[in-house]
Amino acid sequence: MSAEEAVQEANRRFYQALTDLDLAAMASVWLEEPWIRCIHPGWPMLSGWHDVMESWRRIFENTAQHQVSPDDVSVRLFGDLAWVLCVERINMSSPASDGLSFAQGTNLFLATDSGWRMVLHHASLLPVEGSPEPPPVVH
Amino acid sequence: MSAEEAVQEANRRFYQALTDLDLAAMASVWLEEPWIRCIHPGWPMLSGWHDVMESWRRIFENTAQHQVSPDDVSVRLFGDLAWVLCVERINMSSPASDGLSFAQGTNLFLATDSGWRMVLHHASLLPVEGSPEPPPVVH
Repeated sequence: MSAEEAVQEANRRFYQALTDLDLAAMASVWLEEPWIRCIHPGWPMLSGWHDVMESWRRIFENTAQHQVSPDDVSVRLFGDLAWVLCVERINMSSPASDGLSFAQGTNLFLATDSGWRMVLHHASLLPVEGSPEPPPVVH
Repeated sequence: MSAEEAVQEANRRFYQALTDLDLAAMASVWLEEPWIRCIHPGWPMLSGWHDVMESWRRIFENTAQHQVSPDDVSVRLFGDLAWVLCVERINMSSPASDGLSFAQGTNLFLATDSGWRMVLHHASLLPVEGSPEPPPVVH
């Protein structure tokens, strides 16, 4: 498997763990270090293994069922670091929030002895399709 | 100057160009490549030098005056690639949108023969201080 394929696979495992609400699988995707970072849509940045895992635990506890799949995936390698950029297609099937939404995901993976591990996740909601483009005054 | 200081300096030049609405200065911050990426808050991802620069041109044209300064800056080096994570403190002084807002910025810089150049910018708005934490159901 090429490095790019391995990074793609690590990224798929991330979205599978998210879809499955599987905290152990999510933990296995990330690098266990105090300097990892995670930015959920609209949340302040979280730093370090403990806070990042705690956030996933809370999210998983509060999500009945959903499916999150990566679209338009692009990978770029910079030595031991790789970025994966993708559109997250979020299909909520809870009674409270039906429907489809989209987020832009920036995921960074680091090559380690145990494979490519996520070190940063930054996701932010995208405008709903068909809505007017947001005003350009806020960059 | 250490690599970390040089990355910090490149990041400062980015926010200075943004504050000054200076397209030439902004162009000098970025790497001129088709694979660079930029995600403005709420915008779909932009790819490549042309589209990224065109977006800054439009933003600068539609912004009368503002100040964007990076807070809580952290830098991490991975060989030739570095991340800068920061809170963007956005002070709008246009009549249409007074006040202060905050965004989370993820900036990636690549070491090149002409110094550290931005290759990715992902910014997303943060909740206003004092507002309740967003629901955790959308990760």
